[in-house]
Amino acid sequence: MSNNLLANKKGIIFGALDEQSIAWHVAEKCVEQGAKITLTNAPVALRMGKIQELSAKLNAELIGADATSVEDLENLLKQSMQVLGGKIDFILHSIGMSLNVRKGKSYTDINYDFMLKTFDISAISFHKLMQSAYKLDAISEGGSILALTYIAAQRVFPDYSEMAESKALLESFARSFGYHFGTLKKVRVNTISQSPTWTTAGSGIKGFKEFYDYANKMSPLGNASADACGDYCVAMFSDLTRMVTMQNLYHDGGFSTMGMNPAILDM
Amino acid sequence: MSNNLLANKKGIIFGALDEQSIAWHVAEKCVEQGAKITLTNAPVALRMGKIQELSAKLNAELIGADATSVEDLENLLKQSMQVLGGKIDFILHSIGMSLNVRKGKSYTDINYDFMLKTFDISAISFHKLMQSAYKLDAISEGGSILALTYIAAQRVFPDYSEMAESKALLESFARSFGYHFGTLKKVRVNTISQSPTWTTAGSGIKGFKEFYDYANKMSPLGNASADACGDYCVAMFSDLTRMVTMQNLYHDGGFSTMGMNPAILDM
Amino acid sequence: MSNNLLANKKGIIFGALDEQSIAWHVAEKCVEQGAKITLTNAPVALRMGKIQELSAKLNAELIGADATSVEDLENLLKQSMQVLGGKIDFILHSIGMSLNVRKGKSYTDINYDFMLKTFDISAISFHKLMQSAYKLDAISEGGSILALTYIAAQRVFPDYSEMAESKALLESFARSFGYHFGTLKKVRVNTISQSPTWTTAGSGIKGFKEFYDYANKMSPLGNASADACGDYCVAMFSDLTRMVTMQNLYHDGGFSTMGMNPAILDM
Amino acid sequence: MSNNLLANKKGIIFGALDEQSIAWHVAEKCVEQGAKITLTNAPVALRMGKIQELSAKLNAELIGADATSVEDLENLLKQSMQVLGGKIDFILHSIGMSLNVRKGKSYTDINYDFMLKTFDISAISFHKLMQSAYKLDAISEGGSILALTYIAAQRVFPDYSEMAESKALLESFARSFGYHFGTLKKVRVNTISQSPTWTTAGSGIKGFKEFYDYANKMSPLGNASADACGDYCVAMFSDLTRMVTMQNLYHDGGFSTMGMNPAILDM
Repeated sequence: MSNNLLANKKGIIFGALDEQSIAWHVAEKCVEQGAKITLTNAPVALRMGKIQELSAKLNAELIGADATSVEDLENLLKQSMQVLGGKIDFILHSIGMSLNVRKGKSYTDINYDFMLKTFDISAISFHKLMQSAYKLDAISEGGSILALTYIAAQRVFPDYSEMAESKALLESFARSFGYHFGTLKKVRVNTISQSPTWTTAGSGIKGFKEFYDYANKMSPLGNASADACGDYCVAMFSDLTRMVTMQNLYHDGGFSTMGMNPAILDM
Repeated sequence: MSNNLLANKKGIIFGALDEQSIAWHVAEKCVEQGAKITLTNAPVALRMGKIQELSAKLNAELIGADATSVEDLENLLKQSMQVLGGKIDFILHSIGMSLNVRKGKSYTDINYDFMLKTFDISAISFHKLMQSAYKLDAISEGGSILALTYIAAQRVFPDYSEMAESKALLESFARSFGYHFGTLKKVRVNTISQSPTWTTAGSGIKGFKEFYDYANKMSPLGNASADACGDYCVAMFSDLTRMVTMQNLYHDGGFSTMGMNPAILDM
Repeated sequence: MSNNLLANKKGIIFGALDEQSIAWHVAEKCVEQGAKITLTNAPVALRMGKIQELSAKLNAELIGADATSVEDLENLLKQSMQVLGGKIDFILHSIGMSLNVRKGKSYTDINYDFMLKTFDISAISFHKLMQSAYKLDAISEGGSILALTYIAAQRVFPDYSEMAESKALLESFARSFGYHFGTLKKVRVNTISQSPTWTTAGSGIKGFKEFYDYANKMSPLGNASADACGDYCVAMFSDLTRMVTMQNLYHDGGFSTMGMNPAILDM
Repeated sequence: MSNNLLANKKGIIFGALDEQSIAWHVAEKCVEQGAKITLTNAPVALRMGKIQELSAKLNAELIGADATSVEDLENLLKQSMQVLGGKIDFILHSIGMSLNVRKGKSYTDINYDFMLKTFDISAISFHKLMQSAYKLDAISEGGSILALTYIAAQRVFPDYSEMAESKALLESFARSFGYHFGTLKKVRVNTISQSPTWTTAGSGIKGFKEFYDYANKMSPLGNASADACGDYCVAMFSDLTRMVTMQNLYHDGGFSTMGMNPAILDM
């Protein structure tokens, strides 16, 4: 149902791959609420995923960009402004990938070249995006920038490995740049700390099903879905939340606040 | 501007006194977004404030209730359900008053009878409200309950005195009851930690102007206004945020995340 | 083993009842480290517990006090100063009791008179103690005041009921009075958030064994014992930690920082 | 004054440069408390600093190591075990350096090669150290590993620039490895979040004096000195704190818990 909450707003959505992607849902919800958007992902993802389909469905231009490349990010911002007809009102950063996890290296046997690459993809890309946007003056006054994160930045989930550090970095970038963007032109920067979600990326992590079920039992409302996350992103992109900035916002059915849920003991 | 975000929703707003009240703005915004509401305040406030005016303007029934009286709260809930035609979808608790501050007793010379009364009015009233609603099964599935709080629950602002403890209590009640309400019927309970706001209540606190200016300088977006808080409450009452619960949400222009703002040094 | 860490220090220990009490261990450790102390507990506890034994063993005067009575607390402070020969260097507040839990009232069916009494005993007693000490100028420059708390002040453990709020209050009092005591004479005030512990008080709470086992599995070091807590209190009373104040310090084997421990899934 | 708290313990202290260094004080205090230690720093620091002097004074072998080199760290651990005659009981990581700050690059004009190098030196070195120790089984059962950090990991201090992210990373590594080390052999890993301190490194940061004075006024006990930090590290290395792990411990005179100190307004 549309409330036209994002009427006349222009956005860029990173990270949609297929219908399981959180970013896919966010993109759909934003357009439904009246926004015009561009979609972006890594060139390799453009070939593999079903994002072309989403692009067609939403009438949203698809612009490939390696999120670790400042040049690509600048190009993405410029092209988006051209296509959408002005400065950007909102951005979703939804990118994460651990090379050490993918290569089967445990947390106590990290390959440090992989780690640096993981940080570059999963976190520094967010700084690069914001710095590019800052330099290009690409964001509208009162704009809203979001990145998706996970509670492993605060608490230990051993199988999440170096993604914990990636998310800690990501959240710190949001705080730091939130100051600069807020002071300059009242642009907000926040992170949404989402429940474990059945995505192609998430479900590949070792022990993910256990994560998922445990979190679902622990959370009084159950795990938040990608669909619900799309709605929350809409709220955070809208003017209704224009004074919320530099926050890490748990969208997790209450997981983060539970110490012990008796339901866990019945598992 | 209305997006009809709260269409068909029924709510109860505590604490509107005059145009400066946050609750006043929340009430206006909720109605603007399509909600039907009742207004409530203490009998003495009904006589003194301009809330009758608001009641007329919003076509919202005004129901007096002493928030420390379980009987009054039960009556308020029952009457609201009757007037609004069904279970309640959202509630705003916006009540706070320190007897020790009012009587000029410093934090190191507390009168403990006053303190208990302060807690009863400012925090336990929230538990009483939720317990009454829980027992009466007065809240709709997926409903949203909010209380307004202040960052003094986490950090020390000496002049805030025992209100710091009142807010710590209030936020704990939100977490605890959030579990029970969430488990029972997916009702959310959250607190919004608002910037210092120029209200009749707030501005009476000793050193309030200094609070206000300091917080305003410290916050990259400046202090959040009562008007912006109204919008944020709308977002939190809407279905867009249906999986957010048991959270304390800073609505403060970034204040809570600042360590030092160079702007402070220019004051 | 003694390191004479508390040589020449004078302390007051609340809450020792029997050998299971954390306070019992703290008292023993403090004396072992060279301190002179007085012991105190409620008159009824003096009759029931084995605290007389501890008093004799440690050569520590036993002074009955109802912790909710300002008069009793003042008397305790004065008598302790007299017995110990000067101002007090450290205090342990280890008091907690929930009337609603004891009476079998669930969290959604609270008796509010019981709740007020619970807060008075478990939390406001701490303010009363500090206010009395502040007014009597009973604490030495650089002194250290501690209260024992539990992580239920931050996260929900449903069976802990209104003790969650009691601990939230207690921790807030520590922060607020920490400012006043620190500014006045560099006295520190902190809380130690201890693992679930097999005490006469703790083990009476419904579902305590489940709490205990769950926390033990979740914590990489296992639950912290009363004995280890005694050592930690010694560290916090000593001059080694003289610049730590207004903190809530987890003494919990890592529980508070765990999101999910794979060991839980094997339970 | 010695309490022999670290009798028979073997430690490695990183980062002592001159008498202003926190690590210098930690090293002195540890030896005073009965520990045997080795000292380490980067080869270039060995040549420039006065660390040779400290080595001679404390009879502590000086072992050069580039903290970004796994090979150097392994050599350091092996040599330390040989020199000290067994496994290591405690380690202090006190390393931090921002290339972007040093090169005058602002936070909105970051050079990303510099950033990666900054992270490698200031944070990843900590993972490398722990991973090397873990693989070599170089830490005694019940050992204690500490790293020094700063509150910029939680809140924004604009001039601290990318060191904020370095510290966020560092603290996350402490949590993550704390799980692995704790589970394996009850080794603790914590970070101490220290007041701004007049060190050669710290005082080079732009606006440091303002930081320092502001923090000093804000903190009820004033800023914690390097000397006090040495004492706190002793407490954290001792068995008194053996159940504290995966914590970020503020050693800051109360700064982190203050919202506003009236003393600031008098500046």
